[in-house]
Amino acid sequence: MLIATPQSMHFAEPLALTSGASIRAYDLSYETYGSLNADRSNAVLVCHALNASHHVAGVYAGQPKSEGWWHSMIGPGKPLDTDRFFVIGINNLGSCFGSTGPMHANPDRVDGQVYGASFPVVTVEDWVNAQALLLDRLGIQTLAAVMGGSLGGMQALGWALQYPMRLRHAVVVASAPNLTAENIAFNEVARRAIVTDPDFHGGDFYQHGVLPKRGLRIARMIGHITYLSDDVMNEKFGRQLRSAVSGANEGSYRYSTQEVEFQIESYLRYQGDKFADYFDANTYLLITRALDYFDPARAHGGSLTQALAGAQAKFLLVSFATDWRFAPARSREIVKALLDNQREVSYAEIDAPHGHDAFLLDDARYHAVVRAYFNNVAQEVGA
Amino acid sequence: MLIATPQSMHFAEPLALTSGASIRAYDLSYETYGSLNADRSNAVLVCHALNASHHVAGVYAGQPKSEGWWHSMIGPGKPLDTDRFFVIGINNLGSCFGSTGPMHANPDRVDGQVYGASFPVVTVEDWVNAQALLLDRLGIQTLAAVMGGSLGGMQALGWALQYPMRLRHAVVVASAPNLTAENIAFNEVARRAIVTDPDFHGGDFYQHGVLPKRGLRIARMIGHITYLSDDVMNEKFGRQLRSAVSGANEGSYRYSTQEVEFQIESYLRYQGDKFADYFDANTYLLITRALDYFDPARAHGGSLTQALAGAQAKFLLVSFATDWRFAPARSREIVKALLDNQREVSYAEIDAPHGHDAFLLDDARYHAVVRAYFNNVAQEVGA
Repeated sequence: MLIATPQSMHFAEPLALTSGASIRAYDLSYETYGSLNADRSNAVLVCHALNASHHVAGVYAGQPKSEGWWHSMIGPGKPLDTDRFFVIGINNLGSCFGSTGPMHANPDRVDGQVYGASFPVVTVEDWVNAQALLLDRLGIQTLAAVMGGSLGGMQALGWALQYPMRLRHAVVVASAPNLTAENIAFNEVARRAIVTDPDFHGGDFYQHGVLPKRGLRIARMIGHITYLSDDVMNEKFGRQLRSAVSGANEGSYRYSTQEVEFQIESYLRYQGDKFADYFDANTYLLITRALDYFDPARAHGGSLTQALAGAQAKFLLVSFATDWRFAPARSREIVKALLDNQREVSYAEIDAPHGHDAFLLDDARYHAVVRAYFNNVAQEVGA
Repeated sequence: MLIATPQSMHFAEPLALTSGASIRAYDLSYETYGSLNADRSNAVLVCHALNASHHVAGVYAGQPKSEGWWHSMIGPGKPLDTDRFFVIGINNLGSCFGSTGPMHANPDRVDGQVYGASFPVVTVEDWVNAQALLLDRLGIQTLAAVMGGSLGGMQALGWALQYPMRLRHAVVVASAPNLTAENIAFNEVARRAIVTDPDFHGGDFYQHGVLPKRGLRIARMIGHITYLSDDVMNEKFGRQLRSAVSGANEGSYRYSTQEVEFQIESYLRYQGDKFADYFDANTYLLITRALDYFDPARAHGGSLTQALAGAQAKFLLVSFATDWRFAPARSREIVKALLDNQREVSYAEIDAPHGHDAFLLDDARYHAVVRAYFNNVAQEVGA
């Protein structure tokens, strides 16, 4: 069993942000798995998406159920093999899992108040810069690969653009070159649910001793619907009634507008409740905004080809047929722009039924593609 | 210009509901357009969906902008031609546009309190029964057709099953034989947003002098996203910034989590605000539940073919290629079940880009199909 140990690194120098603001001082939580080889060539950075952290793989000592969020993918003998690679997970700035975020004390305030809503807006580019500074401290100049799914894939793409000489490979899974209007729309509804929750208090709910759980629940329910495919929801839940599961009046409608009637409702309420208990509302706003803002083509008149002209890495892109949040067509836009620039690209479109969530799941074809790719990377870097 | 005149009919006899409850007495608001012919054979009932009413066509005297919700489809010389047909629109029970609903006085209470959350759950079947009673009063035994889109299409299907001898044709547009898990999920999130709004007060907000506008706004924003297609959202809004429209700092990100940044956000907030000003929260719960519950196959072991065995009407079904809320595949399920029963069915799948909203819009191919169909109906009934 791979045992993970969370670590933290303090940065006393201010970090300049894309917005023009800066963070005066900050901490980054991170974990590493496996061993850095003698020539420091086998490091792989794994970037997380909305609802995850630096705890990518393994379990914490004495907590056998505390598996990292990508444990099916990363570990000894797994597709990204920690017996060969030195894998690094970093919690992003603004998150709520250890790195400096809205619930931490704002050093600009003498009264010790937390940042709350005053935590500056952070972008994918800012996260990549902070990750690069942490890697400097770890003495890692060049990464064998940067890998991520969804928002994590955007960070891998960001690495290829911001630090083209510092990575050999970018593995971009279930991602997109930017969000569509529909994606932004779902993010915005979730944010409005949080911001208009009376317990949000403009983002300074910490001082009021309350949490905007109503809003967080709604946000999570919306998210969950969009992570799944229509197919998998029909297969898992369909129109099954809660009563058929609980046994009470099996199979009869209760005729209620407010009580749970269908299993899908019970599932969503449960997911919403769970999320509202641990996720920070300001973090939710920050991370969805980072998604909205990511758009490397924007500075190039909308041309993704021009935006990717400076990339030097080799690429693996993976998408999933039933993912309607980050549809295969969006990955193919990246593939095309890379090919326009004569970059080396592998692309796999996996016919999995699980929607966007598929990138976190253990699909044999998907894992085989990633395993084969990292076998080649290992040979290239002598891992 | 077709001038519409809203009317109301009182029913003193109780209406027994599917749930086992009943409504002791009630009023139905309705409008009619055109003239009933001598043999009373040219009547067409038009059924409304979530956010509409009996005001189907025409305008109110002196209010040139008060067009009925399906005015592009129905009127003199239009696909459903009021020069030939006698068209009837009825506001459904539980709605908030005139017929008895949650904001009306509950006759079971001596203190004159309104129904609020105690308004009984109503189903598509209940609405069809109430519509049939109103038609009795109008002296209409047999309808030339029942027509509806979305939830309205479910009512047209319901008519063919509950009163098979009282209609010659059923025109079912952008509808489905039941909701998928994903559809129920979107309805449930919207309901949770309303029910958990502190101003909802368990549905009795009327007595508190407040309205659960926060919840209604979120519900409407979710609805709007699902009524549109990804394509049309990208075309109408894409990633356009609000600042590019307002002119302030044109084209620059503002880097804010709470302010409007993208045009799509502005659009959704506007739609949410508008809706929250006029729609009743309890009605929203009731109507989405009616959608959830509709499932004629349920009483037949899940067999839609068996469920439709008693239907006698001829059918026109229309679906829209980009409608992901009521996808073409769902209409084809109905077509197949009708063909299994040797019913006469016409089916058109319209390649319109507008998603579910397309059923309300003026698409030439769509209107041509409906026009041709009603031409045949007119000949059949001598209209």
